[in-house]
Amino acid sequence: MLTHFNQQQRAKMVDVSHKEATTRTAIAKSCVVMKPNTLHTIEQKKIAKGDVLAVAQVAGIMAAKKTSEFIPMCHPIFTTGVDLHFEKVAEDTLEIEATVKTVGVTGVEMEALTAVSVAALTIYDMCKAIDKEMTIGPTYLVKKTGGKSDYIHQERADSQ
Amino acid sequence: MLTHFNQQQRAKMVDVSHKEATTRTAIAKSCVVMKPNTLHTIEQKKIAKGDVLAVAQVAGIMAAKKTSEFIPMCHPIFTTGVDLHFEKVAEDTLEIEATVKTVGVTGVEMEALTAVSVAALTIYDMCKAIDKEMTIGPTYLVKKTGGKSDYIHQERADSQ
Amino acid sequence: MLTHFNQQQRAKMVDVSHKEATTRTAIAKSCVVMKPNTLHTIEQKKIAKGDVLAVAQVAGIMAAKKTSEFIPMCHPIFTTGVDLHFEKVAEDTLEIEATVKTVGVTGVEMEALTAVSVAALTIYDMCKAIDKEMTIGPTYLVKKTGGKSDYIHQERADSQ
Amino acid sequence: MLTHFNQQQRAKMVDVSHKEATTRTAIAKSCVVMKPNTLHTIEQKKIAKGDVLAVAQVAGIMAAKKTSEFIPMCHPIFTTGVDLHFEKVAEDTLEIEATVKTVGVTGVEMEALTAVSVAALTIYDMCKAIDKEMTIGPTYLVKKTGGKSDYIHQERADSQ
Amino acid sequence: MLTHFNQQQRAKMVDVSHKEATTRTAIAKSCVVMKPNTLHTIEQKKIAKGDVLAVAQVAGIMAAKKTSEFIPMCHPIFTTGVDLHFEKVAEDTLEIEATVKTVGVTGVEMEALTAVSVAALTIYDMCKAIDKEMTIGPTYLVKKTGGKSDYIHQERADSQ
Amino acid sequence: MLTHFNQQQRAKMVDVSHKEATTRTAIAKSCVVMKPNTLHTIEQKKIAKGDVLAVAQVAGIMAAKKTSEFIPMCHPIFTTGVDLHFEKVAEDTLEIEATVKTVGVTGVEMEALTAVSVAALTIYDMCKAIDKEMTIGPTYLVKKTGGKSDYIHQERADSQ
Repeated sequence: MLTHFNQQQRAKMVDVSHKEATTRTAIAKSCVVMKPNTLHTIEQKKIAKGDVLAVAQVAGIMAAKKTSEFIPMCHPIFTTGVDLHFEKVAEDTLEIEATVKTVGVTGVEMEALTAVSVAALTIYDMCKAIDKEMTIGPTYLVKKTGGKSDYIHQERADSQ
Repeated sequence: MLTHFNQQQRAKMVDVSHKEATTRTAIAKSCVVMKPNTLHTIEQKKIAKGDVLAVAQVAGIMAAKKTSEFIPMCHPIFTTGVDLHFEKVAEDTLEIEATVKTVGVTGVEMEALTAVSVAALTIYDMCKAIDKEMTIGPTYLVKKTGGKSDYIHQERADSQ
Repeated sequence: MLTHFNQQQRAKMVDVSHKEATTRTAIAKSCVVMKPNTLHTIEQKKIAKGDVLAVAQVAGIMAAKKTSEFIPMCHPIFTTGVDLHFEKVAEDTLEIEATVKTVGVTGVEMEALTAVSVAALTIYDMCKAIDKEMTIGPTYLVKKTGGKSDYIHQERADSQ
Repeated sequence: MLTHFNQQQRAKMVDVSHKEATTRTAIAKSCVVMKPNTLHTIEQKKIAKGDVLAVAQVAGIMAAKKTSEFIPMCHPIFTTGVDLHFEKVAEDTLEIEATVKTVGVTGVEMEALTAVSVAALTIYDMCKAIDKEMTIGPTYLVKKTGGKSDYIHQERADSQ
Repeated sequence: MLTHFNQQQRAKMVDVSHKEATTRTAIAKSCVVMKPNTLHTIEQKKIAKGDVLAVAQVAGIMAAKKTSEFIPMCHPIFTTGVDLHFEKVAEDTLEIEATVKTVGVTGVEMEALTAVSVAALTIYDMCKAIDKEMTIGPTYLVKKTGGKSDYIHQERADSQ
Repeated sequence: MLTHFNQQQRAKMVDVSHKEATTRTAIAKSCVVMKPNTLHTIEQKKIAKGDVLAVAQVAGIMAAKKTSEFIPMCHPIFTTGVDLHFEKVAEDTLEIEATVKTVGVTGVEMEALTAVSVAALTIYDMCKAIDKEMTIGPTYLVKKTGGKSDYIHQERADSQ
């Protein structure tokens, strides 16, 4: 029977009406691994499509604001602050970190993860004419505060 | 001087008016690494937010259609076909593959990469209540056909 | 097994790359049944939120353009023309008809159905302060031309 | 005179700054009437485009979040919970019910009505290859709580 | 060095988590200067694309709601009220004024400026078949209240 | 009578199915007039929210792609190229120019006008903390080619 079958696996946006608004932050990281020469060209701002990091920065921030629009079961939330930063951590690796804040009833993990993912995709898009072999990730949550419990990604956080 | 300074690094959506429309495909992959128990719960369709893969599938397809909306310098294109598929490749690893097609003047690499990225983020969102340590990636382009030249990701493609 | 189980029911945006672009039209209808006094107030342009039909017209046209954004497996398409019209067909019934055109590889049935649905929802929204009992529908496809085969809704078309 | 003429019928998003935030819920219903065989094929998950109800579920939830984006005079609101459910109420009729919750200054009637409408349109889209005669509706508000006054659709609610 | 270079000019959505929600309003103005005959045709509602001001009104209100979606560093906010009005201030000049309200932690200047800008662009779009020489602006903030300090555009406000 | 009344002023997206696709370009200009010190601070990249022009550039390009989403009767079109450039034309005036290209059945005037408008709004947003008196405009079409006829803004073009 249709209804019954569906009952157990039906996707829903879970009710959070009863939860209290608190200040919440989340930090996520990703990276783009590329040819050393590609990273060098980004640093020199010589990529033909323009200043890659300036564009990736804007893309990541705008994506954070639209997170609930493409993650289906994600609650809409007002991001009260978004910041991204890029760091060359190896000659072939560009690390991306996003910090997102809100005052609300749900966390902003997805917003932070979305910000770094879209920034990484933007870097790929702007450099793909010279390097199609780039890989994105690992992408992961570094830390969250606020809400029922805080969280710190152990392994990952160690190397911070 | 403002203009001159800006000249060299100005971001632009490069002109493709002269390019001819051809059939193009792109295949991208990503994966989500998680606790074996999380993956088991997904398979059992016992995640509280609903059937994870059914939702991720829809999220990935819808995101592919909106790619040019969040990747700033990406040309808009009509995706004529999008398909995603998921495979458990290890007891802690769920692989995601997207195939995107179009008939147009630009490739659909970004659409395929966006589809797998958003599908992965959706999986994270739906499972984060039981597993915050999941990591997404590596995310990469497996193959593209059509346009000036075809491409196959060597290392990666080997293990296909 | 995960993959196999999923295989048969996996949602996809079916590939239409091989289809030829032709001129296509679709006509859809819906109606809003309301208290005669509500319809009278609409006609008098005395609804507090403003001229209901002028707003519904714009809402329907804009929604037609965004159809593929909220109907998950619907192909994106360029609507080349959209027109809506409203008719009082009974003292309690306002009929809505949308005509949509395109030159493309897929039909515009969904665009026409979406246009009348959103126009109807807009009417509900603007009048709900004085009438919450309004009902929307039946909503249906009246006619389509272009593509593999034409279609005319028999029963419904008869009374046209 | 331009201004004066416009004065009486000018559409506006009415000011609700003074209203207090309360918990609000709304339930709306719609249905899709189709050939018995179409409904049977949905139940068997044999529709070529994929598992219809899984996709419609996601589409309805995502649309609820975007309601104020396509209903012009509708206030933006944070939906704190959205759930849809489908029931076969006759051999040719699939009923759709959406429950939406928020804590805010305006009701969520439009979000609930939009959720069922878009879910219905999605069902139409996925089945139209085998059944173009489907009709959607009646679509109506079953119940709302919170705000100035509660509401229950009499006629309709009786049969609940 | 990449990071350091970027440090000083990195775009961010500044953190407003600590700010208190207050009632805020903003009023912005713009105008469209056109051939007297174009303005006359608008008044007569004889423009082929339809009633220009009715459409511009809806466009301006809908754009106000989406402001943070296209102004990259703009915080999302719930507009609690939006009103536009048009006035012929010279035989060749149509003035547009938008009033936006919210209860929130950031102002609504951008929402008001966006509303008049998009209303003006809509007027241009609907009349461009008969008058391509139209110019839009000056567009400016007339007044804001709420937040740290109020503001009134001196020069401009004088002529109010 | 409702229908008849509506007939003459009904807004519609006019049918362009019969028109042939040609290469089309449009150039639009706007400017932001501000305190000399504000412009100086932009040039020095010392605005607290980040590098203003880099962000405005991205905002303008992204807005061009979404033009038909907020200009109600505007046809969707694929922009095949978008470029913006900024020039200090007086100590208090920053000029913005956008060039948009497409191959399609309708012109890209609205895309170019939207690009400069949103770039200007973005500049306002990023500098409003230090200068609320900025004014935007005049905004106008400089030139279009392709389609039924070309156009050059006489007065304006002279000073080019």
